[in-house]
Amino acid sequence: MTAGEQLLVEQADFVAAVAARLREFLAGRQEIMSAISPDIDPIMDSISNLVTGGKRLRALMCYWGWRGAGGSAGAGEIVTAGAALELFQAAALIHDDIIDRSDTRRGGPSVHRRFGQLHREQGWALDGERFGQAAGILAGDLCLSFSEEAFTDIGPRAASGSTARLIFNLMRAEVMAGQYLDILEEVAGPVRDRTQAVSRAQSIIRFKSAKYSTEHPLALGGALAGAPDDLLRGYSAFALPLGEAFQLRDDVLGVFGDPVTTGKPAGDDLREGKRTVLVALALEQSGDAESAFIDRKLGSPDLDSTDVAEIRRIIVDCGALQATELLIGQYADNALSALAELPVDEFSRSALRKLAEASVSRAS
Amino acid sequence: MTAGEQLLVEQADFVAAVAARLREFLAGRQEIMSAISPDIDPIMDSISNLVTGGKRLRALMCYWGWRGAGGSAGAGEIVTAGAALELFQAAALIHDDIIDRSDTRRGGPSVHRRFGQLHREQGWALDGERFGQAAGILAGDLCLSFSEEAFTDIGPRAASGSTARLIFNLMRAEVMAGQYLDILEEVAGPVRDRTQAVSRAQSIIRFKSAKYSTEHPLALGGALAGAPDDLLRGYSAFALPLGEAFQLRDDVLGVFGDPVTTGKPAGDDLREGKRTVLVALALEQSGDAESAFIDRKLGSPDLDSTDVAEIRRIIVDCGALQATELLIGQYADNALSALAELPVDEFSRSALRKLAEASVSRAS
Repeated sequence: MTAGEQLLVEQADFVAAVAARLREFLAGRQEIMSAISPDIDPIMDSISNLVTGGKRLRALMCYWGWRGAGGSAGAGEIVTAGAALELFQAAALIHDDIIDRSDTRRGGPSVHRRFGQLHREQGWALDGERFGQAAGILAGDLCLSFSEEAFTDIGPRAASGSTARLIFNLMRAEVMAGQYLDILEEVAGPVRDRTQAVSRAQSIIRFKSAKYSTEHPLALGGALAGAPDDLLRGYSAFALPLGEAFQLRDDVLGVFGDPVTTGKPAGDDLREGKRTVLVALALEQSGDAESAFIDRKLGSPDLDSTDVAEIRRIIVDCGALQATELLIGQYADNALSALAELPVDEFSRSALRKLAEASVSRAS
Repeated sequence: MTAGEQLLVEQADFVAAVAARLREFLAGRQEIMSAISPDIDPIMDSISNLVTGGKRLRALMCYWGWRGAGGSAGAGEIVTAGAALELFQAAALIHDDIIDRSDTRRGGPSVHRRFGQLHREQGWALDGERFGQAAGILAGDLCLSFSEEAFTDIGPRAASGSTARLIFNLMRAEVMAGQYLDILEEVAGPVRDRTQAVSRAQSIIRFKSAKYSTEHPLALGGALAGAPDDLLRGYSAFALPLGEAFQLRDDVLGVFGDPVTTGKPAGDDLREGKRTVLVALALEQSGDAESAFIDRKLGSPDLDSTDVAEIRRIIVDCGALQATELLIGQYADNALSALAELPVDEFSRSALRKLAEASVSRAS
């Protein structure tokens, strides 16, 4: 087996172990819930359904952070940590889809939409959309609690006062703060200082995404394996710009991505009114009439495909797309330079390089 | 000082210590959040504002569970546990108010309404109500994470695998399940078997309220002090019926309470469509025309004061109010009988008796 094949096998083993741990964990909770009432099954199903999919980016960052710091392959603690991160991500997605009124997730209906459907199919009374949102809020809360239970299951390495616990806590608080800044920018952005829009958008992606998706999971894996502070600092120098590039790629896909591969309708980000770096650059670099057009259409529920096409044209013509791709390239370069200097074994380094490349050049 | 005075002093000391711990805890988090952006202040303010009020029922149950099991007065662990329970309750209230579309909480605007107001005052763009709900979801998530952080701060007595941790986990999962059953009954109740409505309503209050508000907090305090299993069983025999009586009282206040003392508009529960035991009894015991009237009006957003008065009249005339008061009396008797047999010191027993009496006969 070549080193590259060995890497793929080890990574696949880890992903399978996380999936098995998630199944086992949720089966235990399912028993508790069924004892209360079989009526709760749809809530549990919606959580199980969500954690079976996804790219497992956070769990994998955590794994290679652990391995790079000397943790042994496939150890129980890191599998449990991966499961906790996936449960946290599922909780975040459930609430995020309510907040953004997203109808779809990974090509299927989002959780609150599933409950709206259930309401319709069963012929229940009152407002089905409202019921769907309420059920989604509770499903997300339950999943958030589960993620914490799984995290505590790691045991002594994640005990009160441990570095790993502090990172997990900070990760949660920062992503929630970042999400708030994101929805705040949607409503406050139009009346705030236009010249600061790009910098505000950059701050949002740092907290909402980069720290959460790459920096903290990598550091968490490292901390669980007892990484010294200088390794954790090196991890940050690599993962923070990587996460920024990852989110900028996401923003580009949110406007230009193929709905078949992204699993989201075309122009969904624009309809949600997201003021991403891409959009902020377009507002800054386009003419007055064009930026006024974007301002008027962003977040408009009746944004149609002609509007989406026009905004895309403006973003391309004013150079905002090119500028964003340049930024992605710079961030990726910074990440890869930092990676080259990381005091980790070559096996972990090449795993992190592959993860980095996949995050930045992906199409979904 | 008489034993009664001593009890009041000790209890006041504990409540003050919990308030101080909450302030200290939130001040620490405020620093982290301010470093991200001062824009997050309103989220932190909304949490601080909510945890400064309330009856502290759960924290007090936890305290006397601890004391009754031999825990020492005012110990750090139990103060931290009380703070964790209060943070959890605040998180539950924030999301509950979104789910129930409640405009007010403790006489002021609910958290999502506060953010709707902020949106209006600042003249921000897009939909203020939607922004308020999104901000409320995130504030609740953050508060839920904080409650878990505080719980872990208890240290080794609440470590992975401890009885206290298992109780805390079960409490969270059961209350979320109970809340789901509650919103499910609002929509599914009208098309489900009418003869089972009272029993469904009783199951809802058990999980949504009784286990959460009294049984688990008391057991949690006991477990932190190392209570043996038979004491924990005794605690349940006391606290479960007490919690059921507590929630039935809440349901009566939700329909008949004075808005000035409850801090909620008159008939709010009816407007929300809550199918409480009180309502289920009325549906069962009133005539066809009257139960059809209740069915039609429950959950109707335009329910006016004449409708509220008419539903009140039906509830009284058909004997549902009397039957509920009888149930409250029975549950309270069961609780007090179990209390009399608890193997705890007389000081803790009298504290639990006072708490029980206050919960069942309160007016707000």
